[in-house]
Amino acid sequence: MIKPSNAQGTRDFLPQTVFQRQFIIQTIIKVYEKYGFLPLETPALENIQTLTGKYGEEGDRLIFKILNSGDVASSISVSDVESKNNHQITKSIAKRGLRYDLTVPFARAVVQHREQLSFPFRRYQIQPVWRADRPQKGRFREFVQCDADIIGTKSITSEADLVGIYQEVFDKIGLPDAQLRINHRKLLEALIKGLKFNISFGDFTVILDKYDKIGLEGIAKELTPFGITQKQVELLASFLNPIAFNTAEILQVFNKIEPSEELEKAQKDLNDLLGLIGNDSPIDIVLDLSLARGLDYYTGCIFEAVVPNSGMGSISGGGRYDNLTEVFGLKDMSGVGISFGIDRIFEILNQRGVLPNQKYAQPTILLCHFDEKTQMAAMHIAKQLRKDEVACVVYPDVKKLPKQLDFANKSGIQYAMIIGERELETQQFNLKNMESGEQKTVSITDIKEIVK
Amino acid sequence: MIKPSNAQGTRDFLPQTVFQRQFIIQTIIKVYEKYGFLPLETPALENIQTLTGKYGEEGDRLIFKILNSGDVASSISVSDVESKNNHQITKSIAKRGLRYDLTVPFARAVVQHREQLSFPFRRYQIQPVWRADRPQKGRFREFVQCDADIIGTKSITSEADLVGIYQEVFDKIGLPDAQLRINHRKLLEALIKGLKFNISFGDFTVILDKYDKIGLEGIAKELTPFGITQKQVELLASFLNPIAFNTAEILQVFNKIEPSEELEKAQKDLNDLLGLIGNDSPIDIVLDLSLARGLDYYTGCIFEAVVPNSGMGSISGGGRYDNLTEVFGLKDMSGVGISFGIDRIFEILNQRGVLPNQKYAQPTILLCHFDEKTQMAAMHIAKQLRKDEVACVVYPDVKKLPKQLDFANKSGIQYAMIIGERELETQQFNLKNMESGEQKTVSITDIKEIVK
Repeated sequence: MIKPSNAQGTRDFLPQTVFQRQFIIQTIIKVYEKYGFLPLETPALENIQTLTGKYGEEGDRLIFKILNSGDVASSISVSDVESKNNHQITKSIAKRGLRYDLTVPFARAVVQHREQLSFPFRRYQIQPVWRADRPQKGRFREFVQCDADIIGTKSITSEADLVGIYQEVFDKIGLPDAQLRINHRKLLEALIKGLKFNISFGDFTVILDKYDKIGLEGIAKELTPFGITQKQVELLASFLNPIAFNTAEILQVFNKIEPSEELEKAQKDLNDLLGLIGNDSPIDIVLDLSLARGLDYYTGCIFEAVVPNSGMGSISGGGRYDNLTEVFGLKDMSGVGISFGIDRIFEILNQRGVLPNQKYAQPTILLCHFDEKTQMAAMHIAKQLRKDEVACVVYPDVKKLPKQLDFANKSGIQYAMIIGERELETQQFNLKNMESGEQKTVSITDIKEIVK
Repeated sequence: MIKPSNAQGTRDFLPQTVFQRQFIIQTIIKVYEKYGFLPLETPALENIQTLTGKYGEEGDRLIFKILNSGDVASSISVSDVESKNNHQITKSIAKRGLRYDLTVPFARAVVQHREQLSFPFRRYQIQPVWRADRPQKGRFREFVQCDADIIGTKSITSEADLVGIYQEVFDKIGLPDAQLRINHRKLLEALIKGLKFNISFGDFTVILDKYDKIGLEGIAKELTPFGITQKQVELLASFLNPIAFNTAEILQVFNKIEPSEELEKAQKDLNDLLGLIGNDSPIDIVLDLSLARGLDYYTGCIFEAVVPNSGMGSISGGGRYDNLTEVFGLKDMSGVGISFGIDRIFEILNQRGVLPNQKYAQPTILLCHFDEKTQMAAMHIAKQLRKDEVACVVYPDVKKLPKQLDFANKSGIQYAMIIGERELETQQFNLKNMESGEQKTVSITDIKEIVK
């Protein structure tokens, strides 16, 4: 016997949870489509060279690799085994991997199918991704990402549309207290230039990205090896509090930073974005200079959404990238995108008890009966009801009525209809609402109206 | 530079294809739900012992195995490499695999979550599966299965519901010429008993399963090693023509086979099923004794659907299994299920040119403009339209009008709205239907009615 269990870090979703996750996903899809985004799907399997080198060293390690089929032994060199050259062994026996995010496969697909696409191209993509991470509460090895990207234009109207999507999604899924944090990579560049930090931009963002977790002291410690003084860190600290994203407040930040080309670009983008968003945002929007985002490829505006006091990290992130497609052979394709994390959104909504409680896709009737003959009649009634697009199930076995009603209750079927000899004669049936207990005597043609 | 390409045997789906595949999938889901089936999702990754030993030797070979992360070298024994013991190496370095079908993960999940489920449980599951098969025309390494199973009852009403689903799905997706082939594993047992074939049931079904491909001569050749004579094969041949699934015709078949317990069981099941289906089937249904189905675990009725003369193999298959959950520790859970192959159904409908041609989820408007100022105004109009649930896109760059209209045309956006200084003054806008060329002067409040 095999003990039935999931692979570590993966989960089954039972019907109720599927419905609830679908509520979130379908809400997001509807908003994406209203903003003119089109669906794209890429395969779970990618050639390994499509994936590696895009997510940093740590990312490469976390890509699930697929073992080549056939004669694996012949691809393994004994000397590699003896010298524990894991890198070389992996390369020899795994030429495919599992999708690690949706952005890199999107970039690949855009280049590959560019002749069939019209740019600027707006695509959404909602598929699982896999990461060989250590599973933790709220962190899984297989999880669903909900991405939207606009590629082929540098226009800040794209960022404005993405902010519009944030506002609408959080309203529609019931997270009005979500907060959108905005920053600009060029503003960070201007900042370290202005503060005279002698550190590469990449090193700086990697350290800043940990601010949420390790705090100012932690940051200071990690900046010390770069010769950055306590005084400089204190200056940096004066920038790290989020401020309201409005004209007066952000102007103050710009004025505090030494002028540079980077500052000018960031200031223009953020001012233009603000002009497009307007001041009537239904959700809280802040400019947050502590926001760095881990990924190397961001070059302009960056986004992160959180639900303050939810105990959950970011529920969405994104940003502008100027050069993601170049590695696949297509230059000058600036894009910007965001990604919602379904699992964390689900977790927060579930904790708040605001997810729809529906157990069936539509009101459903259990057709109960007393013997083989009435069951046969029930099967024929089911046929009629289904012709009228009424969902129903005939209890499959000949069992006592209470057992059948108990099944309706336990499985969340909303109505039970009793089909006995007398009912068949009079063509009048008892229809019981399992939730309210209300009973009605109905004809078959009545039912369609009642259950809809 | 990395040449952008898909892993062999996998595909990207561009928007139009996603919409068309979704048309098929959503049609099937709607029918499943009307028959009371509930959605279940299982992860792509399974522990390898969940998968192996369920699909035969060939199947085990075709399971995609995931390389363990971390120190692979230490798990490889040099002697295994030297002796090319691929089986042992694979076992040591891959403890997870990719889902090979939806039935085995379903059986695992049913046992694992049995306390939370109500039986008989009706589940549907629509997810990709992976097989390390040699890719061919119409055969992929990653493809979507659409399964429905009823588990926890032996009642033939389950089979009748599945036939009802076949009838309705083929009607609704536009394949009225699909044919449903039915057979019964016990009828095959009765047949080889009656014909005095000295062959195990497993060996017999494996050979019979090839009948479509290798014909009678091929079958005869493969049966010879079991001491089955040409004369016996000729007798078998007299059973292999499909016949109409009606009372008179199937009675003739039963009468030709020597009585046995197996015959009695098959006859009862098929007669009962026929009684439930009735004689008014909208699709062709045949009893086909040449139908074997490859999988070991079937024990009762088996199904296969084809579209004759489509040049495509089976588009769906299924059957009853009495003991799929036992290996996971739960006995006496008879079930029956079917699975639609989306890719082949898509292929046939596509060849016939009957798939919906829709390029956007809903009518969408491109908001065109002339400069930064009118673009800004267009962004504000877009906000208003989206509040009214009208889908729209503002052309993101400041470009000449023909370029913008060309974009609408190429990307299949249905309407273009021109936003210039004069239009903004009068609040009367030109709305052009890009397909018909028809133009209308409208106010913003008119638009909602026009595009719906």
